[in-house]
Amino acid sequence: MKRGFGSDNHSGISPEIMKAIADANVEHALAYGDDEYCAHAVEMFKQVFGQQASVYFVFNGTGANVLCIDAMCLSHHAVVCSDTAHIHVDECGAPQRIVGCKLLTVPTPDGKLTPELVRTQLHGFGFEHHSQPRAISIAQSTELGTLYTLDEIRALAELAHNYNMYLHMDGARLANAAVALGCSFREMTTDCGVDCLSFGGTKNGLLMGESAVILNPVLDQELKYRRKQMGQLCSKMRFMAAQFEAYLSEKEGEPLWRRNAEHSNRMAKLLFEEVSKVDCVKVMYPVQVNSVFVQLPREIWTALQNDYFFYDWDIDANVVRWMCSFDTTEEDIHNFVAALRNKCLL
Amino acid sequence: MKRGFGSDNHSGISPEIMKAIADANVEHALAYGDDEYCAHAVEMFKQVFGQQASVYFVFNGTGANVLCIDAMCLSHHAVVCSDTAHIHVDECGAPQRIVGCKLLTVPTPDGKLTPELVRTQLHGFGFEHHSQPRAISIAQSTELGTLYTLDEIRALAELAHNYNMYLHMDGARLANAAVALGCSFREMTTDCGVDCLSFGGTKNGLLMGESAVILNPVLDQELKYRRKQMGQLCSKMRFMAAQFEAYLSEKEGEPLWRRNAEHSNRMAKLLFEEVSKVDCVKVMYPVQVNSVFVQLPREIWTALQNDYFFYDWDIDANVVRWMCSFDTTEEDIHNFVAALRNKCLL
Amino acid sequence: MKRGFGSDNHSGISPEIMKAIADANVEHALAYGDDEYCAHAVEMFKQVFGQQASVYFVFNGTGANVLCIDAMCLSHHAVVCSDTAHIHVDECGAPQRIVGCKLLTVPTPDGKLTPELVRTQLHGFGFEHHSQPRAISIAQSTELGTLYTLDEIRALAELAHNYNMYLHMDGARLANAAVALGCSFREMTTDCGVDCLSFGGTKNGLLMGESAVILNPVLDQELKYRRKQMGQLCSKMRFMAAQFEAYLSEKEGEPLWRRNAEHSNRMAKLLFEEVSKVDCVKVMYPVQVNSVFVQLPREIWTALQNDYFFYDWDIDANVVRWMCSFDTTEEDIHNFVAALRNKCLL
Amino acid sequence: MKRGFGSDNHSGISPEIMKAIADANVEHALAYGDDEYCAHAVEMFKQVFGQQASVYFVFNGTGANVLCIDAMCLSHHAVVCSDTAHIHVDECGAPQRIVGCKLLTVPTPDGKLTPELVRTQLHGFGFEHHSQPRAISIAQSTELGTLYTLDEIRALAELAHNYNMYLHMDGARLANAAVALGCSFREMTTDCGVDCLSFGGTKNGLLMGESAVILNPVLDQELKYRRKQMGQLCSKMRFMAAQFEAYLSEKEGEPLWRRNAEHSNRMAKLLFEEVSKVDCVKVMYPVQVNSVFVQLPREIWTALQNDYFFYDWDIDANVVRWMCSFDTTEEDIHNFVAALRNKCLL
Repeated sequence: MKRGFGSDNHSGISPEIMKAIADANVEHALAYGDDEYCAHAVEMFKQVFGQQASVYFVFNGTGANVLCIDAMCLSHHAVVCSDTAHIHVDECGAPQRIVGCKLLTVPTPDGKLTPELVRTQLHGFGFEHHSQPRAISIAQSTELGTLYTLDEIRALAELAHNYNMYLHMDGARLANAAVALGCSFREMTTDCGVDCLSFGGTKNGLLMGESAVILNPVLDQELKYRRKQMGQLCSKMRFMAAQFEAYLSEKEGEPLWRRNAEHSNRMAKLLFEEVSKVDCVKVMYPVQVNSVFVQLPREIWTALQNDYFFYDWDIDANVVRWMCSFDTTEEDIHNFVAALRNKCLL
Repeated sequence: MKRGFGSDNHSGISPEIMKAIADANVEHALAYGDDEYCAHAVEMFKQVFGQQASVYFVFNGTGANVLCIDAMCLSHHAVVCSDTAHIHVDECGAPQRIVGCKLLTVPTPDGKLTPELVRTQLHGFGFEHHSQPRAISIAQSTELGTLYTLDEIRALAELAHNYNMYLHMDGARLANAAVALGCSFREMTTDCGVDCLSFGGTKNGLLMGESAVILNPVLDQELKYRRKQMGQLCSKMRFMAAQFEAYLSEKEGEPLWRRNAEHSNRMAKLLFEEVSKVDCVKVMYPVQVNSVFVQLPREIWTALQNDYFFYDWDIDANVVRWMCSFDTTEEDIHNFVAALRNKCLL
Repeated sequence: MKRGFGSDNHSGISPEIMKAIADANVEHALAYGDDEYCAHAVEMFKQVFGQQASVYFVFNGTGANVLCIDAMCLSHHAVVCSDTAHIHVDECGAPQRIVGCKLLTVPTPDGKLTPELVRTQLHGFGFEHHSQPRAISIAQSTELGTLYTLDEIRALAELAHNYNMYLHMDGARLANAAVALGCSFREMTTDCGVDCLSFGGTKNGLLMGESAVILNPVLDQELKYRRKQMGQLCSKMRFMAAQFEAYLSEKEGEPLWRRNAEHSNRMAKLLFEEVSKVDCVKVMYPVQVNSVFVQLPREIWTALQNDYFFYDWDIDANVVRWMCSFDTTEEDIHNFVAALRNKCLL
Repeated sequence: MKRGFGSDNHSGISPEIMKAIADANVEHALAYGDDEYCAHAVEMFKQVFGQQASVYFVFNGTGANVLCIDAMCLSHHAVVCSDTAHIHVDECGAPQRIVGCKLLTVPTPDGKLTPELVRTQLHGFGFEHHSQPRAISIAQSTELGTLYTLDEIRALAELAHNYNMYLHMDGARLANAAVALGCSFREMTTDCGVDCLSFGGTKNGLLMGESAVILNPVLDQELKYRRKQMGQLCSKMRFMAAQFEAYLSEKEGEPLWRRNAEHSNRMAKLLFEEVSKVDCVKVMYPVQVNSVFVQLPREIWTALQNDYFFYDWDIDANVVRWMCSFDTTEEDIHNFVAALRNKCLL
């Protein structure tokens, strides 16, 4: 397949990750997380997020999101989220099927919840006919590539806690957000009052592997059974742990996650700059992380899709999404923009 | 960790599998199964199981078993299985939570269902108070290391079909069974009337990867949505496909699955022979695949567990389980038996 | 409790219904629906809705709605409904928990879906990440007391069927709608292409009893097991059947449901006329059935709640709901309006 | 239908219950349990079971059992019960679908669990592959008409509590048990350490109505939402409360439940005595409450079923079940036994 901008999971495995898997492929190790690789990786997570954090490795983002929701909610509870949230739009109803709870969605201009927007859903407490609001879920970065500031996260956490609710962060692209904001994972999560986190790895260079990170120990109740029951318990878990070890490990003071995310963010910035020079294209949101959303005439983007795979984002508005990845090259971008410019000239 | 006999998922990744992953780690590929690796791997499955087969790659055995049960059953249906079945004993209630259905368990002397045993559960059809029997589930090889003959499988499939039911096979160790019976996968499944199959890979050398293989097209209804909703859809699926390609590929006429399973079966035979010479040990079931179940005094097996990890199987009966793997060596066995003999002498 | 306008289920049992229960209280009858009362009541439903209709008596509206949704949807399906729909707002997430499916809600000005509004949700077909739209659900009359014309229902049914979807009608107040439109139940449902119906009784004079009426036989699959499993199978079902017999039976050419609904609609019209004369009150929607939604200053409606129980409908907009019932009297209305007028004068 | 011995829910409504419904059918009352009838009935339950008891009226036995299980268990938990338990055999898998948990069944000779039998299931604690045993469920009287002594109940409660588990009692026929044991409801439940109770009414003269009675306040967590979500919240609940008031009310020192149960127990004793005189019949269990289980040649019971409806209990063993009811007459019994004797003579 042609290298392109379809998704950050179209890229392969980061070489450091590949090496970590190979290095862990020696002798025997206990299964299901009772091995030394897991013990070490868990310790690294605690160093990153604080000693109170507990970590559940799972296979994918659906697993991480659903386990986090399961940690917060019973079936009569509800999660407030943006109507562009991945948990609402892209999980084929997994939270409803697996947890049985409700999502209360709010329209947002830019994929970001605000306390005002959330408050529109905070009613009916104590009324048995109404699903009880129990959690707020935000994505950092959002599905639209926008970012919450630390203050904005803090405000949502406070609002949640004032209502005896919890704040969940979908961090499928947390690394890209951390790079963009110039902060640590911890500053953006634990320190802001986030209660649980879906910590992504696959989109930033892992073979496969995500984590449900429970930051508020109150939520860490019998989750190992829940993970198993959801089919998210990996048997040869050392190979998942080894990936996360490599992901969090530093080389010359820079952890791999940061190196990879810095690169993909930088490539998106370049892509943004280059496409900004193309007449027929309008960039939709500020380019803060590794995605560029653009509006352009339908005949142009459909023509471009003959050569490159990418998703239309809003077919009625002629908005499409282009993603950069840890392995995107400047050449990829120049080739792509050249092809785009050609279509625009026709 | 000391190399031992705790489980066939304590071993690592088969070198051929590791190479396949590395080889697939080039350029970009579409996610979620729309890539060429997946197309090819699916084609290989069709060659193995018949063109009518459809294949759903999933992360683990729980995923494969639950997706198969979901393909056969609504929540008011029931699955008849042995009371030693993995789906009953070792899934933490996943079928109940995810599908909502019932398991009707039957005690068996050796982990094997028979038509007579199954018939004890075949009543209440049409009675709305009773969960409707809808499927029979067997494991090949069984959790006790025993095997169904082709005739026995065929008889259960016929029974199922006579009652408008389906036959599911949990093939977490299907390769070991095929080697032991000297038959192909297809002869043991499609040709016997099996309707759907959990096809294992992880216990026989994969990093991670199992498949729900739907052999009866009637059951292939909207399963792609169901897999996604269960959190079993892999994003970088090329790396799962690449593993299965390598697993099914032949070298000098022998596919990898067979080479690996032949080895682990042979090692179990050797282990059986060696422990048979030890006085304090009684082997419980015929050793047909890669497991050896033995009865021995508690103080001996608990002492042995200081050096080697393995599961007690039936604590009251002092029965423990020892598993061989694709990477078990003769030296591993001799060391282990020597340690065992030492404990017996004390 | 003071007689008032809190809800049409604050009234008691219609005398004819009470008599029917007493009359059925003789000798023995088979349980769970196998008795003659049920056979007769089912026959009456078929006369009303057409011979292809099948009827499942259930305990309440939640039961009827959830059984209908269960008849249409698997967990990866979605139901499009208004964001004021009872199934979304007032079932505490029952469809999500019991069926596991998703509701896709649409804001509406008056509680009514239109093809245009529904179409905003009709995308993502075939895309496994997206819950598949499977049903449209409307209420007749709506939760806001508004009505669909027969043409409007027909248009939604056609839209649904064009997309291989189904149309569900929540008829908790179907009798009030039929009276208001001057049509039969059948003209408003079967003849318009409605696929399944929650047929209400309790709000119009029954002790308790609702029905899931399956009008499209394709949906009538194994529902008796599903009803039982949901806890909606009544044991002494003759007493439910006897109520429905009385409800559908005619006296001087007028069935009870019509007499009761005509009365409550007429009382709402009177209430509307009387409150329209009160200065501080603004009626919100056309009064077509038995509800009157009004906007009035908060201090007035909260003061009035000291004497009368009623629900605030939209606390921010100062809108409250007043319901009339089969036993509402003109005196009730005049007393209530006098009290209201008093508060307005203060 | 001919009066017979098919079930204690084939009888109608006790006259006192009928009167209570009629008496409550005046004026308006708040819906969903916020009325004075409910307040009073709840108070009566507290007097009967202790002030710490909380009561949730539900529609039927499935509702009571599932709400109790829901109060005790999350989906990764398991309930230990007899393999003849109603929750296992006769709920069409409702606990699995609604709660998602597992039932661990134990064969019993007489429908009664013992600590020894329960202990066979008490393993795997802390092991994430294993559904965690969380509750013991017993029926009083059992589905076979046998009884637990107070000491036996106490022993099971102690066992449960020692394992951090709970004891549930399915009291669909609790009144018959109390009469047989000559004790109060409280002595048999609260005082023995029962944690929650399905309290039956329908089989002993109510129109319809059961209760989930939470005796251990630890279990009383957000259950009002759970009841609603399960579709078990009655709107005109005053009519359920009124039935329970009448049921628990005394006349000349004898509550209605006791009068009715004494009668049906006495009738069963008479039926037992009379059928004992018939040669071809063998009574299977001690007749302690209102059921008689007999073994008799198949041609005889099938012939008898032409005239009388009753359930075959174990078709292979030729065992059938005959139930007496609050309205069974001596004449009913003599007619039935005469018919039976006739068949035996043929």
